[in-house]
Order: sequence, then structure tokens, then C-alpha cells
Amino acid sequence: MTDQPHSALIGLGSMGFGMATSLLRGQHRTHGYDISPTQVAAFAEAGGAPGDLADVAPDVDTVVVAVLNAAQTEAVLFGPEGVVPHMKAGAVVVSCATVAPDFARTMEARCAEHGVLYLDAPISGGSVKAAKGQLSIMASGTPQAFAAARPALDAMAETVFELGDSAGAGSAMKAVNQLLAGVHIAAMAEALTFGMTQGVAPDAFVEVISKCAGTSWMLENRAPHIVAGDYTPHSSVNIWPKDLGIVLDIAKSAQFSAPITAAAMQQYLAAAGMGLGGEDDAAVAKVYARNAGLTLPGEG
Amino acid sequence: MTDQPHSALIGLGSMGFGMATSLLRGQHRTHGYDISPTQVAAFAEAGGAPGDLADVAPDVDTVVVAVLNAAQTEAVLFGPEGVVPHMKAGAVVVSCATVAPDFARTMEARCAEHGVLYLDAPISGGSVKAAKGQLSIMASGTPQAFAAARPALDAMAETVFELGDSAGAGSAMKAVNQLLAGVHIAAMAEALTFGMTQGVAPDAFVEVISKCAGTSWMLENRAPHIVAGDYTPHSSVNIWPKDLGIVLDIAKSAQFSAPITAAAMQQYLAAAGMGLGGEDDAAVAKVYARNAGLTLPGEG
Repeated sequence: MTDQPHSALIGLGSMGFGMATSLLRGQHRTHGYDISPTQVAAFAEAGGAPGDLADVAPDVDTVVVAVLNAAQTEAVLFGPEGVVPHMKAGAVVVSCATVAPDFARTMEARCAEHGVLYLDAPISGGSVKAAKGQLSIMASGTPQAFAAARPALDAMAETVFELGDSAGAGSAMKAVNQLLAGVHIAAMAEALTFGMTQGVAPDAFVEVISKCAGTSWMLENRAPHIVAGDYTPHSSVNIWPKDLGIVLDIAKSAQFSAPITAAAMQQYLAAAGMGLGGEDDAAVAKVYARNAGLTLPGEG
Repeated sequence: MTDQPHSALIGLGSMGFGMATSLLRGQHRTHGYDISPTQVAAFAEAGGAPGDLADVAPDVDTVVVAVLNAAQTEAVLFGPEGVVPHMKAGAVVVSCATVAPDFARTMEARCAEHGVLYLDAPISGGSVKAAKGQLSIMASGTPQAFAAARPALDAMAETVFELGDSAGAGSAMKAVNQLLAGVHIAAMAEALTFGMTQGVAPDAFVEVISKCAGTSWMLENRAPHIVAGDYTPHSSVNIWPKDLGIVLDIAKSAQFSAPITAAAMQQYLAAAGMGLGGEDDAAVAKVYARNAGLTLPGEG
């Protein structure tokens, strides 16, 4: 026996790969899984432990799930090759995808049927912070789930917000954050291109507005991508129809009118419809530019 | 003769009064004017210089105009009792209201007919910074206008953005800033109340989101008003139908589609229609709360 924490991470994407290397750096014995053999091989190269998930599952203390959405989360936990039925009692699932609070509550209950703990733990911070072990995690779950997840949280996160003693509260706060983050990116794009119609150059926009009351975290992070004409996807357009879709679905269930979120959603849908889904989400500016006949930096 | 700068300020409101006292603190001989005799008397008490505007105008180096909008600006400059025809050649008008860029260009040209310089100088920062001489000013005008306005700018502003050598560019940047500021306040209200429907308490919203990617300058400044249930108007709801109206008018002239701004505008119009125009602009949250049947802090 050893005291080394023993973890598996499912979903070695732009966030998950960095989280998995953060677990390694935190001295976890860490197995990494993904549908892409390339990603799995890259993680093995980085120091990942070997073994099929079904064989490894009974031994791990923590399974971190860093897949894209609710459907993938359900599949990796409870699908035909789902991990939960193989896990030992008292082990914990740390579920990081952005999902509806009701979905998180359902997963918590289904894990409990197997004696497995569940931490509702959506993440914020981007791929750079994921790789540095500096994520923010909006977490809720039982005290037992928090205690079991602590070694993994310590390795992956700079800040863990403890938002309640059952699943759902973490996902609710994440939805609130995504509402604002998605609106702020699209509003930045709207303002930057509006400014161009009035003779405000994109670099002047960033220089001035980032120091004024109109600034936002997203403006300061994303507007420089437009100035540089660089749409390398740190976070892609496709995230937003998904995440604002979750927000608007929850809002609809609560009969909550969210007109600004709904307007932002249309701009992301237009960007995806233009074929920009795989570009950086700052590319939502291209919708505005096309509508207004503007030429963004780096474009023909 | 003396080297003491000699200024007049028209519009002793929540911004202008503080700007006038900043001029005094900057050793300007300063005359203050307002339609409210109470404000004029308060400024005399604070050290303001006496005299009717028509009598004083030929002697002043700088006239700072801190009124509400374009109509008031035109009236105080060129109306029946307008100041510009009385000013000496080479004196400067520093025009601080949020106006359309075309209006600023027109004012610059009309001032020039009288040999008077014009600085397009909209302000940002709120009443507290106005009183401390720490405003941000988004300025454009001729080098001569900047030079003539410098002593007043030094007294009133912490940051002066020099945005171009003719009027219009300052007002264009201010419109861009107001687009974002107005959208961000309403988006904050939308997210805060959406969160309430999901069990996220307003104080937890501020605590968590202000440290996450969903934050904005306006969220951090205004959301605490909602948590405190304090709608004392530091900046009122009525500002936004006016300023977003300017943005949307300019956008319409440029055939620029601004759906997020348009959605935010509707929420401010609803707030004004509910009789909240004189409350702090964070009161736009009451529109969402009423629509969703929520009770905000400090209510009922």
C-alpha cells in the first residue's frame, strides 16, 4: 500500500489534458482516457499510468470527468462501458462539464446507488490555467465528497468555491458565470465593430476601453485576439451555443426572461452557421463585421 | 494680470459640481452656473467666484460644459443666453456631455466661427472620481484646443485619452464605452436574478462571479447595490435610455445591427416605465425580478 493518491481522468481535451498533467505534478498516480488515441499516447508520454479503465477503476480514489457535455458525462459514468459500476465504495467522481443543475443532482443520486461519491465541480479559467493547476472550481457536494476529492482539487485548482452540500449548486453558479462570459464576449465584439463604424480603430478600442468603466474580464482576454487577427481556438465558438443553450433551457424551465442572453445566443448561432464554430470565440466579431461591411484586422 | 487660470463651469450636477471643486482645488478662479439656485449657492459656499455668466465670459480662458445632453449643450453654448458669442478669441470650450460625434463636429465648427476653440471631451468615472479630480476624459480636438484646455484637464482628470485632432473621435469612443457599460449593468442584473431562480443568493453571486471570467467593471461596481438593497442614484436609470439611445441612433445611421445593445435598451425602458428612472441604474434588476416573481434584497 502507498499513500500516493490514485486518479483517473476521462477527457484529455484542451482542459482535461492540462488537468491530468496537473494531477501528475501533484504526485497523483494518474491514468488518462480519451476517444482520441493520439491524446492517450501523448498523456502516456507525459507520465500517465497504463491500464484499461475497467481494470483500473476498482483501484482509483478519484475519477475526474472533463468531457464536453451532459451526454458525454452520462456515457462515461453509466454507459455500456461506464466507470461508476466498477468503482469502489467511497471513491469520488469529480464532474467538470458545464451541465444543468438537475442533471448534476441526478448523477449524484445514481452514483450514490453504487456507494460512489459525486462532486458537482464545473471549472473556469481556460486551458492555460488548467495546465498550471490554477483553475477556479465552482463545487458543491456532500462533505464526504469534498473530503474524498480534496487531493485532486488541490492539484488542479487555485480556487475552490464551496457552494453547498449537494450537487446542483456548483452547476447553477457555473451557468450564471457562462451567461455573463458569453454575453460579454459578444458585447465586446458588438462594441468593437460599432466603434469601427465611427472611426475607432480596434487597437485604440482595447487600449482605451480596457481602462474605462466599459471593460470586462472577457474584453481584456478576447479583444486582443481580434486586434491580432488570430482566431486560434483557445475556447471555440461552438462552446457558446452549448453553454448559452443550457442557460436558456434552465431559464425557460424557470419561466425566466433573459433577453440579453437570447440576443447573444443568436450571434453565436450565426457565427456557427457561417462555419466559424471551430475558431476562437472572438470570431463572433466576424458576424458583426460581415453584417456591417467591415474588414477586421488580418482579413483580406 | 495674473497667471491664475480662469474658468467657468456650466452644469453643477452630480458630475459637474465635483469637477468645479476640482478646478478650485487646482487653483483655478472658477465660476459655477446651474439652473438650480441651490447648486449655485452651494458652489459659492465652496469657494466659487461670483458674477453673471455674460459678464464673466469675456474674461475666462476655459468654459467647461457638464450638462446632461446635446440639447442642453447647444443651449448653453449658442442659445439666447449662450456663452460662446461672449468669449474671447483663443478661449476654449471643454464639452463633457455624451453626444453623437456629428453633434460634436458641428459644435466645433460653430465655435470656430467665433474664434473659440472646442475640445470634444466626454467623461467617465462617476461622481466620486469627479470630486477627486480623477476622471477619465476621452478627448479629441485641435492641438490648440488641447493646449488651451490643459490646465482644466489637469485639474479634473487622472487620465486624458488623446484620440484625434478634431472633434468627434472623443464622442465616438464614449459611445463605445457607454454601449458596453449599459449592456454590462443589464447583463449583471439578468445574471444575478437568473441565479436567484437557481438558488444562487445575490451575495454569493458577487463573491464568486467577481473572481471569475464572468466579471466586469460594472458588475463589481453595481451588483453590491442590489445586495445592499440600496438604490441611491450614483448614476440613474434615466442615463441609459439617453446614452444607449445615442448609441442606437448612431448605429442606425451607420446601418449597424446591435442586437445586444437593443435588448439592454428595452430593459432600461421597462425600468423607466415602472417609475424607476430616478433610482440607481442597478434598479434595472427590478424589471427582471418583477417578471420572474423574485424578491430582491431589501424588498417586501
